[in-house]
Amino acid sequence: MPGFLAAAGPAGLKKDGVKDLGIIFSTVPATVAGVFTRNRIKAAPVLFDIERIGSGQCQAIVANSGNANACTGIQGMRDAEAMARATGKALQIDESLVMVASTGVIGKTLDISKIENAIPGILQHLTSSGLPDVAEAIMTTDSVPKIVSKKGSISGKEFTVTAMAKGAGMIRPDMATMLCFVCTDIGASHNILQESLKVAVDKSFNIITVDGDTSTNDTVLLLANGLSGITLEHDKSLEMFRDILDDLLIQLARMIVKDGEGATKLVTVLVKGGRTVDEAKGVAETVANSSLVKTALFGEDANWGRIMAAAGRAGVPVNPDAIDIYFDDICMVKSGMGLGDEIEAAVTSILKTDQFTITIDLNSGEEKAEVLTCDLSLDYVRINADYRT
Amino acid sequence: MPGFLAAAGPAGLKKDGVKDLGIIFSTVPATVAGVFTRNRIKAAPVLFDIERIGSGQCQAIVANSGNANACTGIQGMRDAEAMARATGKALQIDESLVMVASTGVIGKTLDISKIENAIPGILQHLTSSGLPDVAEAIMTTDSVPKIVSKKGSISGKEFTVTAMAKGAGMIRPDMATMLCFVCTDIGASHNILQESLKVAVDKSFNIITVDGDTSTNDTVLLLANGLSGITLEHDKSLEMFRDILDDLLIQLARMIVKDGEGATKLVTVLVKGGRTVDEAKGVAETVANSSLVKTALFGEDANWGRIMAAAGRAGVPVNPDAIDIYFDDICMVKSGMGLGDEIEAAVTSILKTDQFTITIDLNSGEEKAEVLTCDLSLDYVRINADYRT
Repeated sequence: MPGFLAAAGPAGLKKDGVKDLGIIFSTVPATVAGVFTRNRIKAAPVLFDIERIGSGQCQAIVANSGNANACTGIQGMRDAEAMARATGKALQIDESLVMVASTGVIGKTLDISKIENAIPGILQHLTSSGLPDVAEAIMTTDSVPKIVSKKGSISGKEFTVTAMAKGAGMIRPDMATMLCFVCTDIGASHNILQESLKVAVDKSFNIITVDGDTSTNDTVLLLANGLSGITLEHDKSLEMFRDILDDLLIQLARMIVKDGEGATKLVTVLVKGGRTVDEAKGVAETVANSSLVKTALFGEDANWGRIMAAAGRAGVPVNPDAIDIYFDDICMVKSGMGLGDEIEAAVTSILKTDQFTITIDLNSGEEKAEVLTCDLSLDYVRINADYRT
Repeated sequence: MPGFLAAAGPAGLKKDGVKDLGIIFSTVPATVAGVFTRNRIKAAPVLFDIERIGSGQCQAIVANSGNANACTGIQGMRDAEAMARATGKALQIDESLVMVASTGVIGKTLDISKIENAIPGILQHLTSSGLPDVAEAIMTTDSVPKIVSKKGSISGKEFTVTAMAKGAGMIRPDMATMLCFVCTDIGASHNILQESLKVAVDKSFNIITVDGDTSTNDTVLLLANGLSGITLEHDKSLEMFRDILDDLLIQLARMIVKDGEGATKLVTVLVKGGRTVDEAKGVAETVANSSLVKTALFGEDANWGRIMAAAGRAGVPVNPDAIDIYFDDICMVKSGMGLGDEIEAAVTSILKTDQFTITIDLNSGEEKAEVLTCDLSLDYVRINADYRT
């Protein structure tokens, strides 16, 4: 894509010389939009970016894994600044055009000298094909890098949107991304970008959950450098761009849940027939976050009673005798009661697949909501009991 | 204790001929108080008891494990009635004086004929020492029966309170008990009993969590038959009774968390320095229910960053830079920042014990709240993935 270069390499924050530092660089200053964690405890780089994004301009992102630079006080803010300064200096751009992201363990001071020392060497490998390396460098418990790309064309001119994300744990609705960087060569005002990003995040990262925990570091940054020669206005071009952005972020969101810590299944919880969207969402989130539902999914056990019990504690005045539950197209619960053992055999074969939808029809109204979740497995516990060792 | 007889035996609802049906009988009608699940999806026996408790009188409780009789529709209500009727008939008492409780799998119709057939045989063994057998018969994933007893004396007359509970999963604040039966030979009005029970439940079962899931079947029943000759009034006798009741239910609540599914540790999460009790409670519950905190506890990993992250997403306007965190008496986080690796070694040795307190001081006010929780272990997942098989 015109004007975006990237590189990544090992700074030594993680063991075994794996890539843990990545830099994305736009050859010209880009318009930037951002969405950040709503956790009250925000990591230093998040606070840093929230302040910096006010200018609406960004030319580079520097991101590390292995350390979240969260709960690190004043020193953490200094370290975030130092990362930006070292990157700006090495790229010979104004350091105020650099944004920062970190992910990893909370509460450890960053070994900033390692990062400062690594930046010049990494930048020697800046290349237009370097974005996948950055996607790799920001991984923590992710098992695969997550990067997707799509082209569009407007008035005969082509543009590209490339989006990467990391995240596998500490994932729940309300900015479930950990980190996501989106680069496009389209041009747009900050306001148009920001609005488009917010809508796309609500449709994607805000409807996924792995473990119900929200991170201190969630950051989505969208850079638009305009080098395609297309400038978005409030017309059909904007619609096309938004469709592509939505699609890419939804793809990434699904990849995150599928790669959820220890996850063996990607499950869509669709609640319909709600009186309001909020009520439908309340039930969907409670079911999608229930440890008992999630362990039953792992066990491939059609234990719909746990779905009912979770629906009943969602703080929503559901009518138990009106509820229907489907696994994919098979109705297992009608008017609050199970349909028997034959149905159960069919449902169990759906549960043995790695991707399916649980539909809960409250039969009380017309509204619906959806949350993507995964199962709670032995490996989730193994990964998280030993995370820092 | 004067006038309470009990017996239990196998009705065949569970495999291998283990006890799954228990009956408690008071030789005279007792005053009854009850507290029930706030889940919108209530099991048939809960709906049955809520209706029946209006009379304020009860002479027998019949309870089964192996099947929750929940989400069983009209047939479930008929089965709850049939359990009460068969018990009343065999005991030769008015069937309206019998209350019912069930626990086990949700969504299966009860095999009521097994229960009806078993009742007469079980009642042949009614004995004043039978309460522990009932405590055993109501176990599901519990590893030990839970029963405690205490004596008091008022004006030279002695009285006894004996309380039993079952519960190991689907446990969270807001009636976390699954089942609890309390018998006393004190006499009291329904209102005094009900008020005393509500207060005791708020101090005990309502501050514990195992997995954040609330059951459809939670039931606490308190029977007071008056045979000690003491009648509670609004005076010092009431205070003494309440102290004993509080103490017994708190003991049972701790036993439930300690016996939480797969639990290896009993952890008190104490939040102080809150601006309001609700804010303190919100932080305590979010930390106590966080899968990431609970897996770190299982891993004996002093990962306080997860505690901070959970506190930050509790929906409470906490000030990150004001937060102190203690493990027992050791301060690990001061003003939002970790105190370093030497402290960590000391904290790790606390984490290796099976019982400790995490104190989170928000330093924003004078209010506090406490929640008891346990760790999230590999066995929690094993137990719940395979629950029905």
